Amino acid sequence: MLDTGIEKSETLRDTVRAFVERKAVTNTILGVIIFNAITLGLSTSASIQASVGHLLTTFDSIVLGVFVAELLLKFYAYRLSFFRNAWNIFDLVVVTLGLLPNRDGLSALRGLRVIRAMRLLSVIPQMRAVVQALLDALPGMGAVIIMISIVFYVFAVMATLMYGPDFPEWFGTLGRSLYSLFQIMTLESWSMGIVRPVMETHPTAWLFFVPFIVITAFSVLNLFIGLLVNTMQSAVEDESVEEFSHLRELVRSETDIVDDRVKELLVEVKALRREVAELKGQGDD
Amino acid sequence: MLDTGIEKSETLRDTVRAFVERKAVTNTILGVIIFNAITLGLSTSASIQASVGHLLTTFDSIVLGVFVAELLLKFYAYRLSFFRNAWNIFDLVVVTLGLLPNRDGLSALRGLRVIRAMRLLSVIPQMRAVVQALLDALPGMGAVIIMISIVFYVFAVMATLMYGPDFPEWFGTLGRSLYSLFQIMTLESWSMGIVRPVMETHPTAWLFFVPFIVITAFSVLNLFIGLLVNTMQSAVEDESVEEFSHLRELVRSETDIVDDRVKELLVEVKALRREVAELKGQGDD
Amino acid sequence: MLDTGIEKSETLRDTVRAFVERKAVTNTILGVIIFNAITLGLSTSASIQASVGHLLTTFDSIVLGVFVAELLLKFYAYRLSFFRNAWNIFDLVVVTLGLLPNRDGLSALRGLRVIRAMRLLSVIPQMRAVVQALLDALPGMGAVIIMISIVFYVFAVMATLMYGPDFPEWFGTLGRSLYSLFQIMTLESWSMGIVRPVMETHPTAWLFFVPFIVITAFSVLNLFIGLLVNTMQSAVEDESVEEFSHLRELVRSETDIVDDRVKELLVEVKALRREVAELKGQGDD
Amino acid sequence: MLDTGIEKSETLRDTVRAFVERKAVTNTILGVIIFNAITLGLSTSASIQASVGHLLTTFDSIVLGVFVAELLLKFYAYRLSFFRNAWNIFDLVVVTLGLLPNRDGLSALRGLRVIRAMRLLSVIPQMRAVVQALLDALPGMGAVIIMISIVFYVFAVMATLMYGPDFPEWFGTLGRSLYSLFQIMTLESWSMGIVRPVMETHPTAWLFFVPFIVITAFSVLNLFIGLLVNTMQSAVEDESVEEFSHLRELVRSETDIVDDRVKELLVEVKALRREVAELKGQGDD
Repeated sequence: MLDTGIEKSETLRDTVRAFVERKAVTNTILGVIIFNAITLGLSTSASIQASVGHLLTTFDSIVLGVFVAELLLKFYAYRLSFFRNAWNIFDLVVVTLGLLPNRDGLSALRGLRVIRAMRLLSVIPQMRAVVQALLDALPGMGAVIIMISIVFYVFAVMATLMYGPDFPEWFGTLGRSLYSLFQIMTLESWSMGIVRPVMETHPTAWLFFVPFIVITAFSVLNLFIGLLVNTMQSAVEDESVEEFSHLRELVRSETDIVDDRVKELLVEVKALRREVAELKGQGDD
Repeated sequence: MLDTGIEKSETLRDTVRAFVERKAVTNTILGVIIFNAITLGLSTSASIQASVGHLLTTFDSIVLGVFVAELLLKFYAYRLSFFRNAWNIFDLVVVTLGLLPNRDGLSALRGLRVIRAMRLLSVIPQMRAVVQALLDALPGMGAVIIMISIVFYVFAVMATLMYGPDFPEWFGTLGRSLYSLFQIMTLESWSMGIVRPVMETHPTAWLFFVPFIVITAFSVLNLFIGLLVNTMQSAVEDESVEEFSHLRELVRSETDIVDDRVKELLVEVKALRREVAELKGQGDD
Repeated sequence: MLDTGIEKSETLRDTVRAFVERKAVTNTILGVIIFNAITLGLSTSASIQASVGHLLTTFDSIVLGVFVAELLLKFYAYRLSFFRNAWNIFDLVVVTLGLLPNRDGLSALRGLRVIRAMRLLSVIPQMRAVVQALLDALPGMGAVIIMISIVFYVFAVMATLMYGPDFPEWFGTLGRSLYSLFQIMTLESWSMGIVRPVMETHPTAWLFFVPFIVITAFSVLNLFIGLLVNTMQSAVEDESVEEFSHLRELVRSETDIVDDRVKELLVEVKALRREVAELKGQGDD
Repeated sequence: MLDTGIEKSETLRDTVRAFVERKAVTNTILGVIIFNAITLGLSTSASIQASVGHLLTTFDSIVLGVFVAELLLKFYAYRLSFFRNAWNIFDLVVVTLGLLPNRDGLSALRGLRVIRAMRLLSVIPQMRAVVQALLDALPGMGAVIIMISIVFYVFAVMATLMYGPDFPEWFGTLGRSLYSLFQIMTLESWSMGIVRPVMETHPTAWLFFVPFIVITAFSVLNLFIGLLVNTMQSAVEDESVEEFSHLRELVRSETDIVDDRVKELLVEVKALRREVAELKGQGDD
């Protein structure tokens, strides 16, 4: 009885797994995501919201139900190995964000719901590949990113101590300094907006900000070059492996020609030797 | 009679085709385009417009007539295969834009007429090659562009829902949000112009905009790297094919030297064997 | 007499040539340029100008005299082949700019005099190499630059016709439109400064400016990639030529080993054949 | 006695050296640096400063004492070879900056103290490697950087002379001009902020600034390409050396096969010759 129970459960699990992996099911989910992305877009229009807002809200709840059901089925089918796939975790997170309380005052949380449309990236295989390629590039950038972080932190603490009292809006706290330095790193209004005003009270501020710009620009440049050389190198490597196999084939076929002729020669010489041996035998006679 | 009619028409078609393909004709068209580009430029000057405006308008009509005649001839000569060449479609579109009603109030349509000067790109072969090279780069970028589009759409919907009510000018509609996010992606006034004002009412707005900047910058970077590696790889591949043919030649010529000597040896051994055979014959005698 | 006169003149010419090419002379000129660059820098300070301005002006006249004398000597020494060297023409132009009338009202011309310090680029060989490398990159960029110019021209004419009447400051004339489009291409204040104000009267202006930004950004990107691939390719080519010569050496030395042994074998077989011939001779006896 | 004294001192020196190089000691120092970085960050908060400011100051003095002690020990251990390691000099400088008088009025010097946290870059080996890689890239950029410096200097002198009198805020002194040109090179507000206002009084100013932007942008681009090609080339070179060793192995092993067979043949022929010699001996008999 128990055995059959387990077996039945196993069978059910397999059936569920087969179901969630069926092309028709994944395509339906994709369709739901696209349709939801469109309705979410429509819900931004005040006039549409006024006329069919109720419908959009209802539809949104249905979609959320479909997503929750899909995740539950998947979780039932794969159990803990569900969490081994980073895309499942991604889906879980973006769907969960849609379950957050949705009060009118909390417009920020209302917006978060939309992130669900990002599931387009997790459901379409080509998009997965692109995102994967982007993420694969990250580890190689680790050391430089940590270095830039240290430089950012040190400059932010210095800016807060030096310019915080006079420019609380920009450098009043460590967080504000980090934000302002990020803005300066992107070169947005760094001079007219920030450094020139600061230089009016601290004439030597350029000694702080210009090196900061040069250091971060140079670091980002090196980050980029490192990334590029890595990508290029692995591309060249594949090429070079293929080229080498061609070369090997070439060298082998060419050597084989010589080798064949030498073998022919060897046969000839052995035949000759046999004949000489016979001749010798004659002589001995 | 009928047969001759078809033949005559075929002959006329061939004559027209030969005519529109004649060097003198294409050069004349090129001359007309350049001259038209200059007169279009002159027509932007109010003083020139006042003195010889009538002349410029007349000339413009003549040029338009020439272009229409050229297109009709080409269409007659190539029939439906006219549409197989993307450049013909390009010419058709830019010439058609010049046929749009040209009222004084519609200054936008008045400007569109000028796009005709873009025919310089379609008529000069070198320019065609450059544009072709640019377009050839597009397919390889497809997946990343779709990914960036999805990210843009999701962030635009979120921004409209979250910041639209307070900043209708920037995020009031989905279209405005898309435009503002494009501006932010180009880093133009993103902080001083948009994010700092937004942060005054939504202090956590940087949590939305800074990741957006980092994600899009990183994606564009990868787009660029992908493009670069592709271009580089195809350049290296050509090189490597050429190099391989050199190598093959080298290996073959070197093996041939050995092979020739082995052949010589084989001749020698065969002669030897013949002599031994003769010797054996002597012995037998 | 006449013959001697020519000879004397030739000798004088050679002496002058040797003089202007002497290390000591070129180093002196370099010293004068550096010293002049410093005095030109000092002359920007109002207080220094007030105290030793007369001295600086005098010195400047002397330097100019030295430069003119150097150019005259060089022209005498090389005659028309003087103009074959682009650096001589560069020197001629920047020195001539210093001879322009220098009235107080014409501050623009006063500034042009300073361009003379650019001779540092033409006198130091390493700097010449860098500038040469930059100029060498230009021809490969020719086609794309012409394409960008055509795009610029067409968009500028369109902008002048469409937005000129409402925004004369930015798009009033063809020149202003070209300048404004250059600013937009560099992404400087393109949205907050130009396009948003324009969109207030022409709501569809983004349909004009966003494609312009995308097209020029993409073209510049391709310009850059083309440049990079060219540089890289010629670097790889040098490498690959060297690698190939190594390979050739390797293949030859390896084939030589086999070849030597085959030669040895041939000697052996020939000796054998001789012996067999002798044996046959014996047999014949 | 004296000898023993020297020996003892040597022993002490070795002990100290072993001590400062011990893993436990370097890790402790790293811990102190990290903890100090955190307390420096905390000291930027006014509320934390108010409640535990005294504690933070005390801790800061202790950390400074630890750093000074570490440097003294290192200096005792390595003597003058201490200065051979650039990282020691870096540590010395950033620690010394913390010893500067720290009055309340001199907020600038107060900030400099924080630079001490940069020791994270000198203590963690991975960070050292990243910084080293950045610095290694510099020499290859030397010539282009000098060229850009010359261009900057000449344009700054010209700008000061031409626009200084009318725009003292931007171009009043050589220093201000250099700063403004740096801002223009980063493209920050170059047109709306600087060049358009200048063009109101000097309509031809674009003839000065647009070429400046094009020249510096092109130079920086070439700087970047040079850096990239260098990095790429050394990466490709390593690859190519490895590939060549594979090829050599392949060619050798293939030649060996032929060579072995030829050797076998040689043995055969030699044996044959011996037999013929014997046969001849028989014949002689």
